[in-house]
Amino acid sequence: MNPMTINEMTSDECSAVLVRASFGRLGCSLKDQAYVVPIYLVYDASYFYALSTEGRKIEWMRKNPKVCVQVDEFQGESNWVSVIAYGEYQELTEPQFTQERNHARHLLEKRPSWWQTALAERELKAAKNIIDPLFFRIHVVSTTGLRASD
Amino acid sequence: MNPMTINEMTSDECSAVLVRASFGRLGCSLKDQAYVVPIYLVYDASYFYALSTEGRKIEWMRKNPKVCVQVDEFQGESNWVSVIAYGEYQELTEPQFTQERNHARHLLEKRPSWWQTALAERELKAAKNIIDPLFFRIHVVSTTGLRASD
Repeated sequence: MNPMTINEMTSDECSAVLVRASFGRLGCSLKDQAYVVPIYLVYDASYFYALSTEGRKIEWMRKNPKVCVQVDEFQGESNWVSVIAYGEYQELTEPQFTQERNHARHLLEKRPSWWQTALAERELKAAKNIIDPLFFRIHVVSTTGLRASD
Repeated sequence: MNPMTINEMTSDECSAVLVRASFGRLGCSLKDQAYVVPIYLVYDASYFYALSTEGRKIEWMRKNPKVCVQVDEFQGESNWVSVIAYGEYQELTEPQFTQERNHARHLLEKRPSWWQTALAERELKAAKNIIDPLFFRIHVVSTTGLRASD
């Protein structure tokens, strides 16, 4: 009998995981079809910040801003945490959100080559006449998490 | 200038990634709220097979069977693939799906301790009077994938 147990995490424990994260899976939905995509992001004071290019996820989040972000830390099959954060998409357009955009850039640029994935995607899409990278944030309104331990 | 490029994958390349996967993120949606959860699974002949317990993902997929599975292989920040498979949830109830259920068990039990996470979740939920583990499959109807390389 394996001794692994799974326990629900408190809101504070979930927040601690989000603060440590630099990578997660973004879930969005359109006409009740879910879509999941890996994404680099930074969490600060109830917001995830991220950089992207135009594409399916941006198109879908503009139409339906109710999204989620799933983050996990995996040390082994019986030693992991997984947190899901529900929140609302907000595009950091200028000039309305210049300050928030600068804050996003400041947070994101701490990661080496933080712009690399978004720019490479832009190059892929250049042939299709799709557009400039953009900043967005997700206002996290609730979290739940599970912790497995042996 | 970093030489990373991102390219779209063919359907065959996507399938090869799904066949190698034993773990992914399941995305489901209810009333256009997305939900993402890590899950062990096996892919065989256009179907993902998985074991679960009752809970939010099962409840949501019963109400809205349009789901997706995101799988990635990460060798480095500029060397990865990410595939998203769209499909339809199907619960392997008995006696209608006894054969498919046995097939699912046969595929899943190749992974050591394959039942462990689902059983531990069952123990967590036991206090809430939630029920037995169940098998389900997802019929994959389309895939898209991106490959980053340097």
